Amino acid sequence: MVDERAAQRHASRDHRIAHRVGELTAQLVDASGAPLADREVEVTQTRHAFGFGSTGFELIPHANGEEDASALAEDWLGVFDTATLPFYRGDFEPERGVTRTATIRAAAHWFADRGVRLKGHPLVWHTVKSRWMDELPLDEVKDLVQSRIRREIDDFRGLIGSWDVVNEAVIMPVFENEPDGVPNAISRLARERGRIPLIRDAFAEARAADPDAVLLINDFDLSSAYECLIEGLLEAGVTIDAIGLQTHMHQGYWGEETMLAMVDRFARYGLPLHLTENTLLSGELMPADIVDLNDYQPESWPSTPEGEARQADELVRHYRSLVEHPSVQSITYWGITDKGAWLGAPGGLLRADGSRKPAYDALRQLVRGEWWLSPTRMRTDHDGRVRVSGFLGDYRVTAGAASAAFMIGRAGSDALLAPLVVA
Amino acid sequence: MVDERAAQRHASRDHRIAHRVGELTAQLVDASGAPLADREVEVTQTRHAFGFGSTGFELIPHANGEEDASALAEDWLGVFDTATLPFYRGDFEPERGVTRTATIRAAAHWFADRGVRLKGHPLVWHTVKSRWMDELPLDEVKDLVQSRIRREIDDFRGLIGSWDVVNEAVIMPVFENEPDGVPNAISRLARERGRIPLIRDAFAEARAADPDAVLLINDFDLSSAYECLIEGLLEAGVTIDAIGLQTHMHQGYWGEETMLAMVDRFARYGLPLHLTENTLLSGELMPADIVDLNDYQPESWPSTPEGEARQADELVRHYRSLVEHPSVQSITYWGITDKGAWLGAPGGLLRADGSRKPAYDALRQLVRGEWWLSPTRMRTDHDGRVRVSGFLGDYRVTAGAASAAFMIGRAGSDALLAPLVVA
Repeated sequence: MVDERAAQRHASRDHRIAHRVGELTAQLVDASGAPLADREVEVTQTRHAFGFGSTGFELIPHANGEEDASALAEDWLGVFDTATLPFYRGDFEPERGVTRTATIRAAAHWFADRGVRLKGHPLVWHTVKSRWMDELPLDEVKDLVQSRIRREIDDFRGLIGSWDVVNEAVIMPVFENEPDGVPNAISRLARERGRIPLIRDAFAEARAADPDAVLLINDFDLSSAYECLIEGLLEAGVTIDAIGLQTHMHQGYWGEETMLAMVDRFARYGLPLHLTENTLLSGELMPADIVDLNDYQPESWPSTPEGEARQADELVRHYRSLVEHPSVQSITYWGITDKGAWLGAPGGLLRADGSRKPAYDALRQLVRGEWWLSPTRMRTDHDGRVRVSGFLGDYRVTAGAASAAFMIGRAGSDALLAPLVVA
Repeated sequence: MVDERAAQRHASRDHRIAHRVGELTAQLVDASGAPLADREVEVTQTRHAFGFGSTGFELIPHANGEEDASALAEDWLGVFDTATLPFYRGDFEPERGVTRTATIRAAAHWFADRGVRLKGHPLVWHTVKSRWMDELPLDEVKDLVQSRIRREIDDFRGLIGSWDVVNEAVIMPVFENEPDGVPNAISRLARERGRIPLIRDAFAEARAADPDAVLLINDFDLSSAYECLIEGLLEAGVTIDAIGLQTHMHQGYWGEETMLAMVDRFARYGLPLHLTENTLLSGELMPADIVDLNDYQPESWPSTPEGEARQADELVRHYRSLVEHPSVQSITYWGITDKGAWLGAPGGLLRADGSRKPAYDALRQLVRGEWWLSPTRMRTDHDGRVRVSGFLGDYRVTAGAASAAFMIGRAGSDALLAPLVVA
């Protein structure tokens, strides 16, 4: 427990993150409505409004009781509050109609029980394909695309509130890098029907299945192509709730300037931006001439001490700069651990043996330190009021055995809450 | 005059260009309606339906009587039938309201009098900017964009039948390579309003000004970005008459396979494709790492004998492969002469001293040789009929002092014309 409010004061005074910080005065009352005057209480943040996310893939066996990964779970929950769960169709439905729904649902429950927000990724994608769809006629493919959107959203309603509806649509119709050389059905569909009709229909299906869900498109192509696609979708009347931007940096950190110039280009559509897939390596970088990252998977790709120091530094710079940008609403790190990491790359915050890299501690110090209100003792005034400032998010105030939850929902505001019943 | 029909038979039998070749039977009659039976006549092609174009910039002084470039004019007309005339606003309207209309109109008349079709290029572009627009407020810029579209199309109606309405919209809103460091007004407008609204409004203005004009978008960015832009425009209901594809190959010929794969990607929208800006060098190639071609302008860039042999070979391969593709409707070579060529590059078909490179002769042999019906003697049958086959286009038949024009307008067809009055 921290008695000092130095960090909190620091945060609230930093104009670069003023849009992330709110301040409010709450009057605490007891069950009878009487103010809790001149009382010592404890206030603590319980979750960020900003999404500090990671993949939840690694904890699926643990959540299903298939292995004990308690230490990993503790480290995961010690930094992150938002998980991306896998819906790659080739894995999720390896045979037509045979799905991993139960397994993924158990994982979704595990996360939700711990206050973690969930995103499903992705509903439509050409990669990690269902081979059984390859040979089907396009009308059937189209029906299968629409019905799986409906099925997954129905099956996870109340658990998963956000979906990458269509992934990597820019390259989708012209994608040809098939591991097995067989053209996939989704690319065939996108080429035949066009990107916008495909996305429009997918979003319509998703929206009908859950009007409250946050629906994203998501892409690694951050060139003008994605801008053009987004402009086309907006002109076509497709309501996108957030724009997903992938920034796997296996070839090196781009630096704040390049990253923010990119973010600015997409911010001009006035939509929230989700940095959906972030990777920074703690080992050798991938050669710059690799175009499709999947084409580079060396036999051994170790994490190194110098790499780990660099990763920690870059991670802090990356998160700071993105949190400072008002359009960014979430950052999802692409995998907490090197164990089983994509491409075998040392992009985790934990080493393969589970030990913490410097990047883990650095990120935790930000997300649950500098940007976080740890349990803090305060004294109410003679009207039972306390003044709390901190990062936008969920909070709890405790007075003895009684407590109440509240939210700092608006930056810079000083709104008086209705009396908060602490009971 | 050629008495042999070998080339013609050759062309009509080549299945790769079957979509370019038509065959028809015409009954020739005199002014009184009597068949010209058993008569010797001469048939000759006068123009291709396919647009074999080049820039007409080089002949503007000649057309205006400011210099005698008769030899250049003869070489130009010896190969090309379609000219692109310059409407770069920075040059066309260097001061607000002071335009080169009279000069360009004289050039347009000169070409039109010689049966040359015309395109205006471009009506909206961020490069070769009007500096006097740089500082104007966006609403005024928008008005100036719309009014210049209307003005130019009005002023050239009946002369210019085709317009590059918006040039390079993919990069337009994010373009920053300003020679003078001052942001241009068109990019500001595109960034603020979005590409699609800008293009939609520009096309609407152009369409209203001349409902019969062929309206193009045109771009050098042939990546997925352009696909996405086109898909967005089509979804937004913008009627594009043809898609312009720039293929300046200062860094080397792409080869048939790469070129046709690109063409296939854009052919899938079912619109005619115009290869609007083609360059092949007869000298050293530009280094592959140059991104904006404008960034490379060496002091001297000579045409070499080896380069000229290579250029001729590549030019023939390039034209053959594009003419074989059914979606391609025109090819415009970007400048017949090295004299005053863009970037000083040896991309012309004539050397700076006016002499012909091998590429000139090679292209002429195709366009006015293998693919062309030179004046050919034929004999009508006892009903006055002749059978003509050749590349789609305009033809003339002559019998003594009388003659008549006709057209082969449909590939592969064998339609009987109404009696053709040769008078």
